[in-house]
Amino acid sequence: MQEHGGDIYSNEGLVDFSANINPLGPGEKVMKALKKSLENVTAYPDPKCRALREAVAKREATVPEHIICGNGAADLIYTMVLAEKPKRALLCTPSFSEYEKALRTVDCQIRFHERKEEEGFALTRRYLDELTEDLDMIFLCSPDNPTGQCVEESLLLEIVETCEKKKIRLVLDECFLDFTEDGPWTHHELLIRENRMLFLLRAFTKMFSIPGVRSGYGVCSDTGLLERMQKSRQPWAVSVPAQAAGRAALADDLLPAVTRQLIAEERCHIMGEFTRMGIRYYPASANYILFYSEIDFYEEMKQEGFLIRDCRNYRGLGKGYYRIAVKGREDNDKLLRAFGRIIERRKEETSWQSQS
Amino acid sequence: MQEHGGDIYSNEGLVDFSANINPLGPGEKVMKALKKSLENVTAYPDPKCRALREAVAKREATVPEHIICGNGAADLIYTMVLAEKPKRALLCTPSFSEYEKALRTVDCQIRFHERKEEEGFALTRRYLDELTEDLDMIFLCSPDNPTGQCVEESLLLEIVETCEKKKIRLVLDECFLDFTEDGPWTHHELLIRENRMLFLLRAFTKMFSIPGVRSGYGVCSDTGLLERMQKSRQPWAVSVPAQAAGRAALADDLLPAVTRQLIAEERCHIMGEFTRMGIRYYPASANYILFYSEIDFYEEMKQEGFLIRDCRNYRGLGKGYYRIAVKGREDNDKLLRAFGRIIERRKEETSWQSQS
Repeated sequence: MQEHGGDIYSNEGLVDFSANINPLGPGEKVMKALKKSLENVTAYPDPKCRALREAVAKREATVPEHIICGNGAADLIYTMVLAEKPKRALLCTPSFSEYEKALRTVDCQIRFHERKEEEGFALTRRYLDELTEDLDMIFLCSPDNPTGQCVEESLLLEIVETCEKKKIRLVLDECFLDFTEDGPWTHHELLIRENRMLFLLRAFTKMFSIPGVRSGYGVCSDTGLLERMQKSRQPWAVSVPAQAAGRAALADDLLPAVTRQLIAEERCHIMGEFTRMGIRYYPASANYILFYSEIDFYEEMKQEGFLIRDCRNYRGLGKGYYRIAVKGREDNDKLLRAFGRIIERRKEETSWQSQS
Repeated sequence: MQEHGGDIYSNEGLVDFSANINPLGPGEKVMKALKKSLENVTAYPDPKCRALREAVAKREATVPEHIICGNGAADLIYTMVLAEKPKRALLCTPSFSEYEKALRTVDCQIRFHERKEEEGFALTRRYLDELTEDLDMIFLCSPDNPTGQCVEESLLLEIVETCEKKKIRLVLDECFLDFTEDGPWTHHELLIRENRMLFLLRAFTKMFSIPGVRSGYGVCSDTGLLERMQKSRQPWAVSVPAQAAGRAALADDLLPAVTRQLIAEERCHIMGEFTRMGIRYYPASANYILFYSEIDFYEEMKQEGFLIRDCRNYRGLGKGYYRIAVKGREDNDKLLRAFGRIIERRKEETSWQSQS
């Protein structure tokens, strides 16, 4: 059973479509910064991540005091939960499993809001009714992992407002926002000044293909919260290479722009082929696609040399759901041909069975 | 106020004697592995750190199931505390401040055992009386930071036995053990099979001068504990470079051997000069020395271009205590000459004051 995508260590030799990483790689600027950073690993990292926070603050149109850096965005999920020790939280199903795992570390009571298959796993206004005053914390992922659905903007604004009014900490995970076509025109960081309960989570990991380095950050105007978070973990959580890579990523505007265009085209290409092949998928807006099939595509794809994400262990999904990353044309076409072969084989087997 | 040593970011341009890092640097093997690891940062790190744990297990004469890796040893202190949520803990004063900080994150009641200045801050048999059954966890640092004192071996064995009997989790932090002359002949890892409450904490950070990369590990035969720890943090806590550096460090036997010899000689040299200059120091066994003076050496040394560790914020110490790292002869002599100048100036001032 896969716990997460990207476990190439248990699956050597397979082409990895299970992790949602930019197919274009980290780009020259980030790689150069990483190499250069190795000259400085004999010093402890700056516990306050001063240079990186300043650079992030500029990008996010705020001050460094509103930024906290993490050993990947996942580090900040656990640190947030430990700092706040929420008693009651609300999570959506299906969604990224680390929210629940983090909340369990402080014995939080978790309520689940079901996003329904028949609504394409989109968040609807039903969610607003669930935002009751007894809640301490909610997590929202937009675009969501693994469904690829974004929270619709006017609904999101109502959620932010409700959380502010009812004093519910809202962790809005936008780690994949950069990959969507609306990404560059979505500025939820502008909401943080008026909404102290809003905590935006972002990562360099995905867009800059450096999940191995671990670098993410949070944006929030509640400086007391950020101080409590800083106290809830070791001072040197963010390594020297991670801080350097983050700064270089912020200085690279071209890679995200080129990537967004590539991903938009390729997502469209894959969805078109899926439609043609009769595969039931959920129209996505980021760099991955969730689909459903009765064929055991995880095992079949392994035979074909590809690692995809079996989503059966996501709460709210189950057997038959799979996620693939969107990569470059050559890799995508190889994967699509494998889909074709598997479906063809299946048809032959079925027709042989019905004849016999 | 310094929170920790090694903050070169607040003190640019100073020669850093405040962090206890090997003056010989990381060595070729580790640097080569770090460079090579950058080819693999586009993948997530192995959450199970399989290759590194296997290599550590060989070194520690145990099985990989008894090893847990960390984003530096400090990561494991916080993860241990979160996984166990001890209600009552015993700490020594003075000692490394992160134990207390970590315990505070789970609202643990902390009792303090005072190691006394007049006993050279050594741990004595008085400590055994404090090991009462209501305790859930204790931390011991040997050699201790910042005092440089090792726990005497027969006393340590009694402590291990008592903790096993009374079911007290014993975290034995040996991050600086490699620097002591007894280091290579101290094999506390052999105690873990019989003593499930014992958790040994070790790091690559100090001996291999890679505090910027963050790589440490724990050795413990309580596999249930290690599983709980793994669940209490994100899966990808230990970066790709950190795992690679650790493996390379384990393959380098020469650097620790050469380092131990250098540190032994230089520690002796510095202590000799301190005696000559009348500086009150505490005979140390690792790569740093604690001393006491009424002169404000932190500020005076800054003027001279050196960053040393002002230990006033250590619980149980206070104003007048300072710690310096042991470096190579050239750097040490520069520092010693600065000591000479500062003391000389002080004498002149005092004699001028007494004349006026």
